[in-house]
Amino acid sequence: MKILLIGASGHIGQTVIAALDGRHEVITAGRHSGDVRLDIEDENSIIELFRRLPRLDAVAVATGGRNGHLAPLSEMRAEHYRVGLESKLLGQVNTVLHGMDKLNDGGSFTLVGGVWDPQSIVPLFSNLYMVNGALEAFVVAAATELPRRQRINLVAPLLLSESAPQYGHLFRGAPQVSAAEVARAYSLSIEGIQSGQIYRFGAGHG
Amino acid sequence: MKILLIGASGHIGQTVIAALDGRHEVITAGRHSGDVRLDIEDENSIIELFRRLPRLDAVAVATGGRNGHLAPLSEMRAEHYRVGLESKLLGQVNTVLHGMDKLNDGGSFTLVGGVWDPQSIVPLFSNLYMVNGALEAFVVAAATELPRRQRINLVAPLLLSESAPQYGHLFRGAPQVSAAEVARAYSLSIEGIQSGQIYRFGAGHG
Ligand SMILES: NC(=O)c1ccc[n+]([C@@H]2O[C@H](COP(=O)([O-])OP(=O)(O)OC[C@H]3O[C@@H](n4cnc5c(N)ncnc54)[C@H](OP(=O)(O)O)[C@@H]3O)[C@@H](O)[C@H]2O)c1
Ligand SMILES: NC(=O)c1ccc[n+]([C@@H]2O[C@H](COP(=O)([O-])OP(=O)(O)OC[C@H]3O[C@@H](n4cnc5c(N)ncnc54)[C@H](OP(=O)(O)O)[C@@H]3O)[C@@H](O)[C@H]2O)c1
Repeated sequence: MKILLIGASGHIGQTVIAALDGRHEVITAGRHSGDVRLDIEDENSIIELFRRLPRLDAVAVATGGRNGHLAPLSEMRAEHYRVGLESKLLGQVNTVLHGMDKLNDGGSFTLVGGVWDPQSIVPLFSNLYMVNGALEAFVVAAATELPRRQRINLVAPLLLSESAPQYGHLFRGAPQVSAAEVARAYSLSIEGIQSGQIYRFGAGHG
Repeated sequence: MKILLIGASGHIGQTVIAALDGRHEVITAGRHSGDVRLDIEDENSIIELFRRLPRLDAVAVATGGRNGHLAPLSEMRAEHYRVGLESKLLGQVNTVLHGMDKLNDGGSFTLVGGVWDPQSIVPLFSNLYMVNGALEAFVVAAATELPRRQRINLVAPLLLSESAPQYGHLFRGAPQVSAAEVARAYSLSIEGIQSGQIYRFGAGHG
């Protein structure tokens, strides 16, 4: 398969490459690194990227970046919520809308969300939770409307053990998952047959 | 209780009044009707409204209006998704952010979402589903961060029988729920003790 992996240099991206390498041709993409470059927050750069690329069998996203605004609810304003809506949400939605024409029959989109079940909620992250909820519903809906048996799934981790040094103090006591575990879900989405699925990692405590 | 009901003249709004009337003082609000006026898509008009109002025991939203852009996925663009994000999503989020200071201890916000489980998906509604998913996650998160024991819940109906003449052809075979049934969830949220709950109506088939 020919697979476009956006966010290939990140914690998740690197393990996705490790999980797919050898069996498939992975075209890596990122803002500052990769075989090809784009800014997922900039719709035109997504359009430009797909214009230059050949037909693909899978488009997988594992971008980080701004993603969302972290602040207590009492300090949040609409403009702060727009950070996550315009980057992590609409960046990935644009990847689907503009990638659709370049994706082969039966090809897959794999997007990245996160966990927001009540047991997993921590302070400061309401923008990210909002975006993750929006992505889940979008993926469930898009799975029914994509053309030519194209598929779409969402990978939704809580906290990566690789990110614990940076973010662990904001998630005391929360379950952690390794990036390699999360990469399995990308493989399931890309190499399998499923669509409309949300692969949650680290939700709950048992 | 002193209750602000935004969208009071709508299908749901009218039945919420019927469910609360007599026991409570309901201040009705809408864009073109009601005791007080606001445009929920205009952040300043929300700020202005709360500036003029007394302290409240509950803020309930049942607005309709633009809400979201209806189109097949293949015709959707980011700008279409922004319709729902800026109106139904951020309009209600702004109501919470700017209403917080006027809401008494233990007071409640009740927002309106919708159903997006896989069994309920119909074509054209991906913008609305996205917004409804975002609202669920926002409510779950906000419930943990609101000050002074303030509460927040989401009422999420699928199709109202009252709306079937207008929208029924887009939801063939979908379960319907009466606005009066939906109003019970507003009463549970406003007059009860719960927080962070999603009250779904019409999801699934039995
Ligand atoms: N890490 C966690 O604990 C965790 C938990 C839950 C959910 N997630 C989700 O998983 C995503 C990936 O996490 P991660 O830890 O693997 O991220 P990461 O290590 O920060 O990697 C970020 C990747 O995204 C690329 N990128 C950043 N901004 C971009 C932009 N504007 N346009 C295109 N590419 C961009 C970077 O490429 P360049 O370096 O080339 O710019 C890099 O490859 C997160 O953003 C989040 O949505 C992560
Ligand atoms: N109806 C359904 O089948 C259904 C199904 C699922 C979910 N829902 C959710 O429930 C909501 C209410 O449904 P409904 O059928 O009761 O709606 P509706 O009958 O269309 O009522 C709309 C109400 O919202 C007010 N409104 C519209 N735009 C506004 C704005 N920009 N600012 C402030 N107020 C505004 C209207 O007030 P004025 O007339 O004074 O302008 C009116 O009171 C829907 O919008 C949707 O989110 C409905």
